[in-house]
Amino acid sequence: MSHKMTTKREIQKFINGQLATTHDEIVTEFPLTLFVNDTEFATMVCTPTHLDELVIGFLASEGVIRFKDDIKEMSIDESKGFAYITLHTEMTTSQQLHSKRFIGSCCGKSRQFYFHNDARTAKTSTAQTTLTPNQCILLMKKMQEESIVFQETGGVHNAALCTPEEIIVSRTDIGRHNALDKLYGHSLLHSFSVRDKIIVFSGRISSEVLLKAAKLGVGIVLSKSAPTELAIKLAEDLNITTVGFIRGESFNVYTHPDRIISN
Amino acid sequence: MSHKMTTKREIQKFINGQLATTHDEIVTEFPLTLFVNDTEFATMVCTPTHLDELVIGFLASEGVIRFKDDIKEMSIDESKGFAYITLHTEMTTSQQLHSKRFIGSCCGKSRQFYFHNDARTAKTSTAQTTLTPNQCILLMKKMQEESIVFQETGGVHNAALCTPEEIIVSRTDIGRHNALDKLYGHSLLHSFSVRDKIIVFSGRISSEVLLKAAKLGVGIVLSKSAPTELAIKLAEDLNITTVGFIRGESFNVYTHPDRIISN
Repeated sequence: MSHKMTTKREIQKFINGQLATTHDEIVTEFPLTLFVNDTEFATMVCTPTHLDELVIGFLASEGVIRFKDDIKEMSIDESKGFAYITLHTEMTTSQQLHSKRFIGSCCGKSRQFYFHNDARTAKTSTAQTTLTPNQCILLMKKMQEESIVFQETGGVHNAALCTPEEIIVSRTDIGRHNALDKLYGHSLLHSFSVRDKIIVFSGRISSEVLLKAAKLGVGIVLSKSAPTELAIKLAEDLNITTVGFIRGESFNVYTHPDRIISN
Repeated sequence: MSHKMTTKREIQKFINGQLATTHDEIVTEFPLTLFVNDTEFATMVCTPTHLDELVIGFLASEGVIRFKDDIKEMSIDESKGFAYITLHTEMTTSQQLHSKRFIGSCCGKSRQFYFHNDARTAKTSTAQTTLTPNQCILLMKKMQEESIVFQETGGVHNAALCTPEEIIVSRTDIGRHNALDKLYGHSLLHSFSVRDKIIVFSGRISSEVLLKAAKLGVGIVLSKSAPTELAIKLAEDLNITTVGFIRGESFNVYTHPDRIISN
């Protein structure tokens, strides 16, 4: 059974004062439930592309695995929406705490984590990569040119891993964090380092998006939209440069502007 | 401690080839953890307004309560981001299954629920309310005129409960489902029926949004954006009219067009 990003459906269109039957491209949405070592772990709703990357990226992001070789076996039943993952080891208690609130015990840092596994896996960035303003604008332009589904349906998020000059890999998902997990999974499957790369993202930089970037270890996040206040606080603390509202020839730098250098 | 929807921050703006310091309104994002009968139940990230409505709407939506009187005591500690709810009764096992995957045992219906509590609480709509095309367009216009934060920051969702003519209550949140939960909570706190009302929503109609509408019992959902395929399937099955892409004088009707009648 093969799933696509969109599907064609009959709709009624009201235009010029009349309702008329026509066809439209509708974005798909797919529930995927993960079983880790035979235990139900999580259900996510996603765009059914690159599901192997999504599963691996999600498990890494939740701190369940660090490398693809931590997985002994993985099978995905697309017809039912189930993914079965067997690890080489048992899950630890702290790995199972993935959706439990993290209650910080005053550690001298202002980190405002709200889940246990975020506190375990989000890293302070040590990335040295810098970008010029022109590179910021060009990378956003390149990602938008690649993302046709977004323009067609107005309903998905695009995320890309880039060098200062080029897009390496670009992924699409209906869930903002899923698009980033697919990038994470892709980098683990192909064993390349992302610490010196840049994330370009179509949507708002929420705390969740920022934490995903921190888990990947990147130093710069570019977005078409704005970050939230909590994302800005986390970015300040985790040494990540956030650039938002990249539109036309202008943009805003919210945190760590030292990585944006003169053209 | 009082939280606002946005906060002012210093940023660096790149414009006309120069980086310059300026100020910008940043949307806030607030983690709220719910303890039900002393047990950690869920953590949500939200816009910190109308938290009482949010908590009550979320618990109703998850099937934990049906009426506000099911709650014995509720207190919200905004400084820590905790809400403590004591019910008159113990939670049942099925209420605790809120994040567990629902595996349908072929019941002759095509409902594609993915969580247990959705299957328990989403209702097939029996609403008789109808709208004219002009009313669809006007309600969307009215909601957008009310929602200033969205235009300022590009970062929040707006949802409103309406009659065919007027907006009754409008709520804003960074999470699409939170905005709807606030409406649900508002209707429970003020004990008014929503079955004959209409939901107007700024964002995409995802399956999650559609299920929230079904839990409220409304028959019509209007959106500026498009529904997903899964939302359309659920809407067909739950007898909900979905209208999307309301822009200018045109829109699309995706399901149950019988509730949209001539001007």
